[in-house]
Amino acid sequence: MSPAEFNQKITEIREDRVRGASELARGCLAVLAQAARELPAESVAEWQKRLLQLSADLAETRPSMTPVGNLLRRWNEGLAVDARSNLPVARRSAAGRAEGLIERSRRAVADCAAHAARLLGSGRPIMTHSFSSTVLETCRLLKDRELRMIVTESRPLEEGRRLAEQLSAWRVPTVYVTDAQMGLFVAEAAAVLVGADSVLADGAVLNKAGTYLLALAARERGVPFYVCCESFKRRAASDPPWVLEEMAATELGVPLWPEVTVRNVYFEVTPARLVSAWIDETGVRQSRENQ
Amino acid sequence: MSPAEFNQKITEIREDRVRGASELARGCLAVLAQAARELPAESVAEWQKRLLQLSADLAETRPSMTPVGNLLRRWNEGLAVDARSNLPVARRSAAGRAEGLIERSRRAVADCAAHAARLLGSGRPIMTHSFSSTVLETCRLLKDRELRMIVTESRPLEEGRRLAEQLSAWRVPTVYVTDAQMGLFVAEAAAVLVGADSVLADGAVLNKAGTYLLALAARERGVPFYVCCESFKRRAASDPPWVLEEMAATELGVPLWPEVTVRNVYFEVTPARLVSAWIDETGVRQSRENQ
Repeated sequence: MSPAEFNQKITEIREDRVRGASELARGCLAVLAQAARELPAESVAEWQKRLLQLSADLAETRPSMTPVGNLLRRWNEGLAVDARSNLPVARRSAAGRAEGLIERSRRAVADCAAHAARLLGSGRPIMTHSFSSTVLETCRLLKDRELRMIVTESRPLEEGRRLAEQLSAWRVPTVYVTDAQMGLFVAEAAAVLVGADSVLADGAVLNKAGTYLLALAARERGVPFYVCCESFKRRAASDPPWVLEEMAATELGVPLWPEVTVRNVYFEVTPARLVSAWIDETGVRQSRENQ
Repeated sequence: MSPAEFNQKITEIREDRVRGASELARGCLAVLAQAARELPAESVAEWQKRLLQLSADLAETRPSMTPVGNLLRRWNEGLAVDARSNLPVARRSAAGRAEGLIERSRRAVADCAAHAARLLGSGRPIMTHSFSSTVLETCRLLKDRELRMIVTESRPLEEGRRLAEQLSAWRVPTVYVTDAQMGLFVAEAAAVLVGADSVLADGAVLNKAGTYLLALAARERGVPFYVCCESFKRRAASDPPWVLEEMAATELGVPLWPEVTVRNVYFEVTPARLVSAWIDETGVRQSRENQ
């Protein structure tokens, strides 16, 4: 694969509105695995330099998506060790490490979902917002245990459709509502379960716009609000400040009115005090307020 | 106009998704004014009976819309007095009363908006949800006083577009966001101003789905939440129970997934404790909690 083709991959990841943060992080690692094997280089030093540049470019594509940064940083750290070998060995080692991290990330998602499924139990109506692979995996684990789901459309791109379609294929009875109806329907849920793009050092959750509204309504209605994501999504207090990504205004599909600014901020912060419990691959951590 | 044509008018009002509650109430009164003049009848008694039936049919079209019931009830009450005259006089009197109520309703909206504009003052960013004629009139009064607006799209039919288009024509700088972004953008508003379909006896507000979420977010962000509507929208404690109208699922525009139920509840209740002040044609009533 040529450098131009790697640049094309970067563009695809930057513009991807379908895959969640963990999937995109694994996508970045897959690009690095391939680059480690194929990127033209005269020396190990050149190879290492080019890979670090590619990794930095990938990390910059999705600044709100913490697992991208976390997994790439983890991979970068091993590159100095890889580079102590000759080029063919270094290539194999770096590619193998990327694939190992992909596997660890996948297993972390599966373990999160297993903990979430255990916490939620059978026969419960669960509400979610947006599309999360971890929530989807939890639904898969509960689909034959009388799970019922309440799903929001999640404007602007309506990724709730993808979730509703899969739930329907699994024969999970599902209610599909506009985002504006979240306050009405959360009252019918036994719990809310959302994924996250990041969890901040204080437990606040960075997730798709609308999550904060759902958390507020859940608290008002006395419905527990659970956040389920693997620990690769945690940001340390020392990490660079997070950024709320804004996407193209055209996604809202409205005319260009001269005095109107169309805003399309994808992510927002839900403060830790609205979270009842955080679920990751190691288990469930209840909020102190609920203990 | 024939009875069939009056039935057609009833259908139009039932299916109207553009006009708000007050406009529809005036629409009903206009139908009654015309019916009072034109409905075929052999006697005053027959005329009165047919008008009461038509009024009942109109009232049933939009059970969530209190001004429809309130204004029609007000009109019905005078019909016994009209019916003491001969048919031509009764026709003129009943039609005149309907037109008088239309005028009173219009004036009440204008007076509400004047109070709201005074309360909000110049140069403030104001956020709203859905489309309200009273909010629109308030914007018209403030449009040359450095008003800025934040407008939600208001799924499923996106009546926020109509508002944004008008604000743009008035050269009011406007930010247009998805409903899911309400929690982010309310923090940039000096106040929230919404209309209402009804105000319940305890001060709770029946309005477009999403209003409750906006009120919750406004409280969290410390932004005052004002409700502006004329007193014809108040429900007495003795009124029949209110109904949350649900519209066609097709308005959400999603496929028919076998296991998925698409819900499209238009209205929801925002409890009085989330309202900072109620504005009607007589003035501003602050919430007790804010006094």
